[in-house]
Amino acid sequence: MEKINLREKFSLFNDYWNPRIIGELNGQDVKLVKVRGEFVWHDHKNEDELFLIIKGKLKIEFRDRIVELSEGEMIIIPHGVEHKPFADEEVHMMLFEPKSTINTGEVRNENTRDELEFI
Amino acid sequence: MEKINLREKFSLFNDYWNPRIIGELNGQDVKLVKVRGEFVWHDHKNEDELFLIIKGKLKIEFRDRIVELSEGEMIIIPHGVEHKPFADEEVHMMLFEPKSTINTGEVRNENTRDELEFI
Repeated sequence: MEKINLREKFSLFNDYWNPRIIGELNGQDVKLVKVRGEFVWHDHKNEDELFLIIKGKLKIEFRDRIVELSEGEMIIIPHGVEHKPFADEEVHMMLFEPKSTINTGEVRNENTRDELEFI
Repeated sequence: MEKINLREKFSLFNDYWNPRIIGELNGQDVKLVKVRGEFVWHDHKNEDELFLIIKGKLKIEFRDRIVELSEGEMIIIPHGVEHKPFADEEVHMMLFEPKSTINTGEVRNENTRDELEFI
């Protein structure tokens, strides 16, 4: 039970779209991820997910609109809602979601990460 | 499914030790709370909780030590671990915890909040 410094944890990795786990509670994971560029359209059949922006600007495309999130902003995406995150510049964010969540949801591609590192 | 701006939400209330709910996912609540002064010693029988510091410095006393958390730092307190948060100056923080979590845990006093406002 140690305190966790987000900036310190973000300094431990530099690749994009590859979430790391920094904590777990009540069957949920707390993850950090750096992203840039475009991700795949996907949804999560059973898991709601929360994105909290720590640095940069993230855009999330939904089927009917685009939401832009800046530092200090968050969104909760309910299960079953298709979304495609993208970012022109590097974004640092925190994710909060059930342990069962796979980053690309119902889709499998080169970005799919089944096993995440705990840092 | 709207984005949530933390600063904007914090501007909606000014009392201490009275968490507001700003979102829910997977049976968990996302809460914001402002604190200053001392809280009661308590634990949560079944719920782990996460504190993420958005502004200020929070101290948490455990039975064997004190942990100090600053902006951008978080801690996960497992269920059953007694703790007493306190803060010399105003602290703004975000909490993640199951919907069933009562702020004073197994203790009841004047700070107990059974019904939280959704903002």
